[in-house]
Amino acid sequence: MSRKQYDVVLVSASDPHKSEYSAARWMAMEWLGGYTGEAGDMVITADHAGLWTDSRYFIQAQAELQGSGVVLHKMGEPGTLSIPEWIARHFAGRDAIRVAACGECQSVSFISELQEVLNRSFQNEDSEIILSGDVLDYLWEDRPSIPSSEIITLDEAEVGMTRQEKFAWIREFMAGQPGCDAVLLSSLDQIAWMLNVRGEDIDYNPYVISYLLVSRDRVLWFVKKDEVEEGSETEDSFALLASQGVEIFRYDSIFSELYTFAEESLQGKIYVDLNSLNAQLYATLCDAAGAENILSGASPVILKKALKNEKEIQGFRQVFFEDGIAVERFLYWLEKALAQGESVSEWDAAQKLNSLRAEIEGYRGNSFNTISAYGPGAALPHYCTPTHQAPLIRPEGLYLVDSGGQYFYGTTDITRTIPVGPCSELERKDYTLVLKAMINLSMAVFPDGTPSCQLDALARIHMWKSHRNYGHGTGHGIGFFSGVHEGPQSIRPTVSEPFRAGMVTSNEPGIYREGLHGVRHENIVLCVEDGENEFGKWLRFDTLTCCHFDTSILMTELLSAQEIQWLNAYNESVYQRLVARLEACEGEDIRSWLRHKTLPIK
Amino acid sequence: MSRKQYDVVLVSASDPHKSEYSAARWMAMEWLGGYTGEAGDMVITADHAGLWTDSRYFIQAQAELQGSGVVLHKMGEPGTLSIPEWIARHFAGRDAIRVAACGECQSVSFISELQEVLNRSFQNEDSEIILSGDVLDYLWEDRPSIPSSEIITLDEAEVGMTRQEKFAWIREFMAGQPGCDAVLLSSLDQIAWMLNVRGEDIDYNPYVISYLLVSRDRVLWFVKKDEVEEGSETEDSFALLASQGVEIFRYDSIFSELYTFAEESLQGKIYVDLNSLNAQLYATLCDAAGAENILSGASPVILKKALKNEKEIQGFRQVFFEDGIAVERFLYWLEKALAQGESVSEWDAAQKLNSLRAEIEGYRGNSFNTISAYGPGAALPHYCTPTHQAPLIRPEGLYLVDSGGQYFYGTTDITRTIPVGPCSELERKDYTLVLKAMINLSMAVFPDGTPSCQLDALARIHMWKSHRNYGHGTGHGIGFFSGVHEGPQSIRPTVSEPFRAGMVTSNEPGIYREGLHGVRHENIVLCVEDGENEFGKWLRFDTLTCCHFDTSILMTELLSAQEIQWLNAYNESVYQRLVARLEACEGEDIRSWLRHKTLPIK
Repeated sequence: MSRKQYDVVLVSASDPHKSEYSAARWMAMEWLGGYTGEAGDMVITADHAGLWTDSRYFIQAQAELQGSGVVLHKMGEPGTLSIPEWIARHFAGRDAIRVAACGECQSVSFISELQEVLNRSFQNEDSEIILSGDVLDYLWEDRPSIPSSEIITLDEAEVGMTRQEKFAWIREFMAGQPGCDAVLLSSLDQIAWMLNVRGEDIDYNPYVISYLLVSRDRVLWFVKKDEVEEGSETEDSFALLASQGVEIFRYDSIFSELYTFAEESLQGKIYVDLNSLNAQLYATLCDAAGAENILSGASPVILKKALKNEKEIQGFRQVFFEDGIAVERFLYWLEKALAQGESVSEWDAAQKLNSLRAEIEGYRGNSFNTISAYGPGAALPHYCTPTHQAPLIRPEGLYLVDSGGQYFYGTTDITRTIPVGPCSELERKDYTLVLKAMINLSMAVFPDGTPSCQLDALARIHMWKSHRNYGHGTGHGIGFFSGVHEGPQSIRPTVSEPFRAGMVTSNEPGIYREGLHGVRHENIVLCVEDGENEFGKWLRFDTLTCCHFDTSILMTELLSAQEIQWLNAYNESVYQRLVARLEACEGEDIRSWLRHKTLPIK
Repeated sequence: MSRKQYDVVLVSASDPHKSEYSAARWMAMEWLGGYTGEAGDMVITADHAGLWTDSRYFIQAQAELQGSGVVLHKMGEPGTLSIPEWIARHFAGRDAIRVAACGECQSVSFISELQEVLNRSFQNEDSEIILSGDVLDYLWEDRPSIPSSEIITLDEAEVGMTRQEKFAWIREFMAGQPGCDAVLLSSLDQIAWMLNVRGEDIDYNPYVISYLLVSRDRVLWFVKKDEVEEGSETEDSFALLASQGVEIFRYDSIFSELYTFAEESLQGKIYVDLNSLNAQLYATLCDAAGAENILSGASPVILKKALKNEKEIQGFRQVFFEDGIAVERFLYWLEKALAQGESVSEWDAAQKLNSLRAEIEGYRGNSFNTISAYGPGAALPHYCTPTHQAPLIRPEGLYLVDSGGQYFYGTTDITRTIPVGPCSELERKDYTLVLKAMINLSMAVFPDGTPSCQLDALARIHMWKSHRNYGHGTGHGIGFFSGVHEGPQSIRPTVSEPFRAGMVTSNEPGIYREGLHGVRHENIVLCVEDGENEFGKWLRFDTLTCCHFDTSILMTELLSAQEIQWLNAYNESVYQRLVARLEACEGEDIRSWLRHKTLPIK
């Protein structure tokens, strides 16, 4: 820093694509101070190293930073300055300062806020922010390279929309934006969708690290890292895409190619989404095309991608059948194992479930890290099951398992909480009220475009009557063989995204009691049309998940006749759909086991 | 216009205080083209006169503008340009234009948008917006003067917070705003609350047209219009306030006095709420104090005023008892009159109800224009009962009455829909589902700070299941002897205002069927605390309105046991609380009438 005359170096937990999870290359904070949280920013000066993060990560950061010398700045707590304000105060009295930031990992809004504070705080106009990708390369000797996993192309007959149809669609969008001549995409889920490609560059998310530029007559994909191996899937994929007019460029050539493109091809404005574009790329675009030629707004891919087409829905229906088989086999195995007095740890259970999913044709790994949590562990909604010395599942109380898979024909996510022995009154009541919440949302009928915060309330209302609640959202959107968390919709108290037919979303209320237990019941639901009348168009949910709910500890007196009817019909349909296949896998005994589990109540 | 070299004159339906209802002085559009809607803007050029308004007013505007030569521009419809865009296109090719606007009636955001479009559209920098209060004075010869009704002061022992306490509170707020030395208030409801004063300057809203400036050591009230009559209430009020340190100024001296204040008194910044400040005052402030000395944000009075104190709540409880007596007497009278075959029109009924309210001690007029609507009339949520040839109430179907009063100790608003004879299945089902919605919201328990859109969903959910809905919000905040519509809270699908204990709000779902009937059931509810546990603080509603719901046409099979229990308990409490007083007013017969009306069902 002193050689380069940097007063401040900024490091972010983000990757250049604002991904939910970053590849190892961008986990600079772990390298610097041991911090592995998904959100945070680090500020390094000659005499201070600080990590700024929000309340979700306070406990984790405190533990991980222990002994590193890095100071935790708790965002949102009284007295905690924002990073720009902290920098201004730290260097108060100076005429000017130089701040270096890995511009690829910073957001446009953060850099412009920082610039504004620097302009205001230092009288000399020489204060500057140096956006540079190599701040870290320079310091981090054994920095992991940019991931370069095999790239596969999807069978276009199976995804409902070909590349050419997607290009035509986005060009139609462009035609509706005055003066728009090109769209630049940097979100990895959006690029995977546009090109019908998938990779394994990031754990759990089948994305390909790349940028995509679509103009009126060209498609430029900035994706190549290493040399492409002969005979590899990547080679085939590139050849296929090239034959369809997609120009393949090196990933890191995006910066120089944008200049060439602006000079030779751009005839109007370029559309970008500032929520996902990184600051370095934005600065480059401003230089190459001129700020006046940048149109910013939400990427049209976000909503289009969320409205699943018929083929995708068909895939989802199949994948939830297969996934249900795996989870039922797991629950059957667990019950037998515990009944036989076997010692099963949370980790053992997770491994068993993973292995059953791996038997499914088209399985491409998990969609997130399996949460296998017994008793008090389940009270942490984002519990991380320890690989060593994981707690044993004892034959009493509740066990919670939240897991999902990636498949060529869909992405799954399911949570079941099951009694593994006698349960307390509190466990039974919490279990029942969470199921009541999930059922109520499942049964909802609502107008087209209903704001998602309203759906959230429908899940919570009965729980609220017993003075219970949960601190997370009720649901998140899910991609099609893509990220398990994909918007724009999510069901939360403060999100007003309008619901539309075709959206696939989780329905997962919960109740958590520190030190005691946690309950979460999660199905995935598809939003479908439910007719139209003088009051407008109507929507409802169609449940995709196919796996029974345990009824043995329900306090049925807390359920209405309609709720019981829904539950009985659901469990019966699970039995009817799965039993033959389950019997084929596991033998005769599982038939009577599932029959017993799915018998109607009351 | 040609003498003054104006190319465009802009006229707005707003008053200088962004009031919901304007006094006659600011109803320039009615004078210009006969339009009486509460929202709209008029653009006059040498060859065009146009009215811009939104879909709520299309039908009304079309009817009222008939033959006036004024063209209706339907905002929000495809192809309709905004006013700035229309002006830019109308004068395309010109180097510069001059736009005159009554700056007092324009919003800061509109004028800045217009300025931006002018700058962009005309190359010559001489284009200008002349903000002037006298554009209309000049043209409108018999323009009504600024209202100057009697000003009264409230008994400070009865409103729970004295002026001095309110001044101390707002100065505490100022201390929390860096550099803030003064707050300027221009919303009439906020000023009435701050000074514990009321007037009758605007129909239904007991406000005093004025501005209020509170600094660290001064309180300046810009209020005087005519000479104050000797011995008048206004004289007493001014004397009282002056004795408490309030400096009384002429209303129209605000502009010049702001310069004096900025020069002599202001030691820092001045806080304003741009949502209510008019463009002329903002421009004056920029000149007087400098734009850098203006702090803008939501006025702190809005929320403070909405959180009713103990005294106000006590007043509300009393006023809803008295108001309930009037409405029950009205319902009793109507039933008897119709049973005796009397001819009762919607207008007659409204007059009867108004006269019964007028008997209440402390009555200060209605809080809005009584909606008295029979059959198809009730299908219009904002039906205006005709004064002449009003439809007769016939002995079949549904009659709806939505009304409220202003009283020294509170403001009321109540809707009852009653069967005045045999009803159809559809009327019965709609009636029942609306009541079910109202009851569900009444019974809700929810976390402190729940976004209001979630409460809205609780009212609608069961109605949605039958594919029914309504196009208006479920509830609005209510002032204490103040406006019947006062925020910040309102219960709507898209409003996320957090609910807090102390808020008084309406609960008024409905179902409307064009040409047939309308149903709305409205109670006023107070948000109260409901304990605290590990999940946080809890709230619920306490119903203030005291008037029975007719149960004779209910489809009880559509109600849950809990809903029936709520309804029976409510009707019983109405009987218990009101019957003695009703009997004293009307004689013995009303006792058995109300007993019969409030008998428990099922």
